[in-house]
Amino acid sequence: MRAYVIDRYGDVDGLALRELTVPGAPGPGQVLVRLRAASLNFRELLILAGQYSALCKPQLIPCSDGAGEVVAVGTGVTRTAVGERVMLTFHPHWISGEMPVGRDVLGRGGSVDGTLCEFACVSQEELVRIPDHLSFEEAATLPCAALTAWAALTAGPGLSPGQSVLTQGGGGVSVFALQLARLFGARVIALSSSAERLARLRALGADEVIDYRKQPKWYLAVLQHTAGEGVDLAVEVGGGGTVEQSVQATRVGGRISLVGLLSGGPKLSEAFFYRGLSLHSIRVGSREQFEQMCRAIEVHRLRPVIEQVFRFDEVPHAFQALRAGRHFGKLVVAID
Amino acid sequence: MRAYVIDRYGDVDGLALRELTVPGAPGPGQVLVRLRAASLNFRELLILAGQYSALCKPQLIPCSDGAGEVVAVGTGVTRTAVGERVMLTFHPHWISGEMPVGRDVLGRGGSVDGTLCEFACVSQEELVRIPDHLSFEEAATLPCAALTAWAALTAGPGLSPGQSVLTQGGGGVSVFALQLARLFGARVIALSSSAERLARLRALGADEVIDYRKQPKWYLAVLQHTAGEGVDLAVEVGGGGTVEQSVQATRVGGRISLVGLLSGGPKLSEAFFYRGLSLHSIRVGSREQFEQMCRAIEVHRLRPVIEQVFRFDEVPHAFQALRAGRHFGKLVVAID
Amino acid sequence: MRAYVIDRYGDVDGLALRELTVPGAPGPGQVLVRLRAASLNFRELLILAGQYSALCKPQLIPCSDGAGEVVAVGTGVTRTAVGERVMLTFHPHWISGEMPVGRDVLGRGGSVDGTLCEFACVSQEELVRIPDHLSFEEAATLPCAALTAWAALTAGPGLSPGQSVLTQGGGGVSVFALQLARLFGARVIALSSSAERLARLRALGADEVIDYRKQPKWYLAVLQHTAGEGVDLAVEVGGGGTVEQSVQATRVGGRISLVGLLSGGPKLSEAFFYRGLSLHSIRVGSREQFEQMCRAIEVHRLRPVIEQVFRFDEVPHAFQALRAGRHFGKLVVAID
Amino acid sequence: MRAYVIDRYGDVDGLALRELTVPGAPGPGQVLVRLRAASLNFRELLILAGQYSALCKPQLIPCSDGAGEVVAVGTGVTRTAVGERVMLTFHPHWISGEMPVGRDVLGRGGSVDGTLCEFACVSQEELVRIPDHLSFEEAATLPCAALTAWAALTAGPGLSPGQSVLTQGGGGVSVFALQLARLFGARVIALSSSAERLARLRALGADEVIDYRKQPKWYLAVLQHTAGEGVDLAVEVGGGGTVEQSVQATRVGGRISLVGLLSGGPKLSEAFFYRGLSLHSIRVGSREQFEQMCRAIEVHRLRPVIEQVFRFDEVPHAFQALRAGRHFGKLVVAID
Repeated sequence: MRAYVIDRYGDVDGLALRELTVPGAPGPGQVLVRLRAASLNFRELLILAGQYSALCKPQLIPCSDGAGEVVAVGTGVTRTAVGERVMLTFHPHWISGEMPVGRDVLGRGGSVDGTLCEFACVSQEELVRIPDHLSFEEAATLPCAALTAWAALTAGPGLSPGQSVLTQGGGGVSVFALQLARLFGARVIALSSSAERLARLRALGADEVIDYRKQPKWYLAVLQHTAGEGVDLAVEVGGGGTVEQSVQATRVGGRISLVGLLSGGPKLSEAFFYRGLSLHSIRVGSREQFEQMCRAIEVHRLRPVIEQVFRFDEVPHAFQALRAGRHFGKLVVAID
Repeated sequence: MRAYVIDRYGDVDGLALRELTVPGAPGPGQVLVRLRAASLNFRELLILAGQYSALCKPQLIPCSDGAGEVVAVGTGVTRTAVGERVMLTFHPHWISGEMPVGRDVLGRGGSVDGTLCEFACVSQEELVRIPDHLSFEEAATLPCAALTAWAALTAGPGLSPGQSVLTQGGGGVSVFALQLARLFGARVIALSSSAERLARLRALGADEVIDYRKQPKWYLAVLQHTAGEGVDLAVEVGGGGTVEQSVQATRVGGRISLVGLLSGGPKLSEAFFYRGLSLHSIRVGSREQFEQMCRAIEVHRLRPVIEQVFRFDEVPHAFQALRAGRHFGKLVVAID
Repeated sequence: MRAYVIDRYGDVDGLALRELTVPGAPGPGQVLVRLRAASLNFRELLILAGQYSALCKPQLIPCSDGAGEVVAVGTGVTRTAVGERVMLTFHPHWISGEMPVGRDVLGRGGSVDGTLCEFACVSQEELVRIPDHLSFEEAATLPCAALTAWAALTAGPGLSPGQSVLTQGGGGVSVFALQLARLFGARVIALSSSAERLARLRALGADEVIDYRKQPKWYLAVLQHTAGEGVDLAVEVGGGGTVEQSVQATRVGGRISLVGLLSGGPKLSEAFFYRGLSLHSIRVGSREQFEQMCRAIEVHRLRPVIEQVFRFDEVPHAFQALRAGRHFGKLVVAID
Repeated sequence: MRAYVIDRYGDVDGLALRELTVPGAPGPGQVLVRLRAASLNFRELLILAGQYSALCKPQLIPCSDGAGEVVAVGTGVTRTAVGERVMLTFHPHWISGEMPVGRDVLGRGGSVDGTLCEFACVSQEELVRIPDHLSFEEAATLPCAALTAWAALTAGPGLSPGQSVLTQGGGGVSVFALQLARLFGARVIALSSSAERLARLRALGADEVIDYRKQPKWYLAVLQHTAGEGVDLAVEVGGGGTVEQSVQATRVGGRISLVGLLSGGPKLSEAFFYRGLSLHSIRVGSREQFEQMCRAIEVHRLRPVIEQVFRFDEVPHAFQALRAGRHFGKLVVAID
């Protein structure tokens, strides 16, 4: 089968397209999946760069997110069947409850092989059924970015109808956070950096949009949109300096979900304490959360936002687009 | 001021329309409200009948639910101001957290005077601001029935987008449960007893409707609409025999919110245990829950369903309509 | 290996002692355990009687609870190692979060083989390490009865220091509920039926004891011990008529955990509704809960209460003792 | 009556002892309390220094914490009675649920008068009954420091038996956190700076103690005491540099309760994110939480640790001792 592997760390050109043997017949409890699409996350760039090389499997097939079709099952498989359309979970061993300690700490495409290949043989426990209305390309966007957004919205006391949520920009997690927050009946205030992107966010359901280029002190605009009180929940992507504004933009007793880190850890001002806030680190989520999210996506026929679908031989271009960071929503690779 | 009082227990004709003195200037922390509308709940019939006479204030002004305008405030009042449109809370002393024990156990219109009068002098702690888009008549429907529905939906682990809810009939609580469940992103399966009522439920957003006259074993229809699993949450109004069907219609590990009791207490079958269900009694809710619900109602511009508005001198007719039980949604009294 | 199997349903004499082949080398992710002790639960009598025969594996090895030593591991096993002392989980597929639907619904010793045998080959996911201070006999009492008690105490909003708990009698779950509730800092009020048993409960830490033979309306005694308010949590074993007294003995807003059913389902009085109670069915628990409980047991060096340890060839006697119901704590079988 | 007031901001010598008129007869819902003891918290030094002068009442009577006896009640008072021994709540308007926004933001002894005086006239809603086994001096230590510790332990998912807690030093909150954590069945690892203090912590029930002077990288010692995993909960007093070590000392998925800020806001390292931690700001707590804590204190007959009791005319010395920071537990003022 065709597969991309990390031949050497450093950059996209360290990726090599190889011909590997297809995994053999699935063992007891195992399932063979013909992958049909993968999607890219920012984390992949860190892995290519070697930032986690000590934790990565050698000759790693990168990418956490994939969707495909079950083509063979081993004995004792009851959770799926040949022909079912499935997604792979990010954390192979995180079924539900708390994240397991010390098992596959990087998730798929890190400590174990990822999805930029034609076949994967995994435990039946690592699969989630694709909602019927979604294509493979759309389904491939869910395992990391959508689930991270879902976990960000449900962290701590969760989100109730009428509460307000702040999202930042047009990256995969932020766009999903906007779309999913609407399903919770929440009001969404979205930040972005151009009239065109703000219009897209509004079309997706943002109740208020703020151009942070025009309003560098955007927390003031958030306060204006919330009667001076601030949002109930800020979904913080962790870029330089945004955390402090999120603190100022969050109501007394509110919460911040930290979904990523672009540079170093956050510095919290005294306001974090005096406003009685809480801060939750979001590490994707469990299979149980994934299934709950898929049910919501299916009932509401939510469609993921895809910027571009690349062919399998265009993977290097897909990574360059990921690095450029000008996309809105998700970048997907079709595995045809 | 004009006021209805319970002159003797027994029936609607025990109600007397009286001329009482308007409460004097509000004391410290108190507020004088000019009531503009009240709404009726089934509980009122039990109180008129004397079922709780031992707990009721003598010469009681009945009715828990009212809305009006602040016309005077005492010293130290900071939660409201003259001219604000407000609703009265059902439980005068339940601010948040757990229901206080042994204080005004029947709520307003039981242990303390209710809302079928022109003026009420209450603590500032007993008021909630009316959402801007609602009339006094609409607002008067919220304190008991809507809050009961909200509490039913949020009991236990709460309700997530994509989960399913069962509602029963077209009474006040059930209609609010349907409308509010939609704000949580839930799928609603509604029971009722005529094509016309089912059509109204569907128009309000019910995803599936079931005519329990045509399908006396309606739990089978619920199972059909939920892939054989049952709903996540049943909002049980507690009529004879419905509890057992609710148990059968609720998924393994699901929950039932019991919002009323028409006759005796529920008998649970063994299935309740084997399906791992939980059952929650709902006793209206706290002011904090009321405010959270109002925020959701305001953001989504939800409009209560009113069957009929009666004039103040038509109160006996209103109670007769309540007893007849053919209304859909709420019965309201305008206090002009 | 020696194993007891259910040769025909009906009674203890339907059990047959057989010589079966030892399971072969464990497959990927599997573990071979040399069982050293099992314990008996009331459920076993229902299974022997054939109450669940339609759901049971043919030629079933009964008993859910077992403890032993790992003697071989398959490839990819990381959660345990040869030589480790382990217990088997009650629900083979319930890792954490919600109970899985439709998988091994009866648990071990029902839909899959149980522990009255010398060797078991199971997935590594079905094992929990034995706390160091416990013998195999003691450890064998934990998987069903202790975990049921733990789940009963942590259901709903959980248990806080200073809260009060009602336990009923000297059965396995009730004795564990008493012992474990003490670890939560709770006050325990224990019912039983003889001076000798009440003395044993008191020695285990019960703050108050009530002889329900002398005080058939024992809820009045519970109210006396709780300043008239009732307990925060009642652990209800579900015998005839006890549920109604538990309702009366539980405080407004409190909760009842239903851990078993001796005869039919519970009938709840109106007081259940008016007191605002909730009722939770307890179906043992997940592996994650099991591990959390074991940590508490280990930190506090809690020791299970064992009435008697039977030899492997005395299993029929052990079942007769179980049926007689005069034991206090647990009945254990040593598998030597 | 005698009362200390802040005559000018700056230091302890800005305090003036005055003779003020005793508050008149309590109004409706009000209660007159003869104060018998007060206790000091670090926050008082910031208030004396004028750090919150813009928010403080002029001629403020400082100190949040007080205990005394009810000597008169107004009409409608049902929560207490003359002769009852009571404590005042820190936040006059925080009954339960979420902290109210914008009401008495500094709490007692800030936006409203505090407890360094002989009489206080307050709403009946601001009182909590003193556990029977405590003296006035002991009770006066609870409203701020003990409740902060309780709220720190119960924040987020709360604390279960067998979990581990890290406490820092011998200040009021940290000592209460140690004592209260024991009631939850938790294992406590306590830091401090001298053999004598460590011995006192151990005598109070600390399972492990660490001298941070001898082990400046104390997080390594915490990891050693927790099998390399870290504690479930760190109660962080917010001193310079401790937050980062707390992050390293907390298990994957664990939590940190931030109970104070000595200098600026915390800087969190990347490990905070990668370990999936959450951070909760603790702003004392509600009356409902206070009552729950008192029940636990009463059941377990927990006794607060008092370093020294000062006479009312020694208040300036008490503040100097507070500033010196060499005390272990609480500093109390008797109001005789």
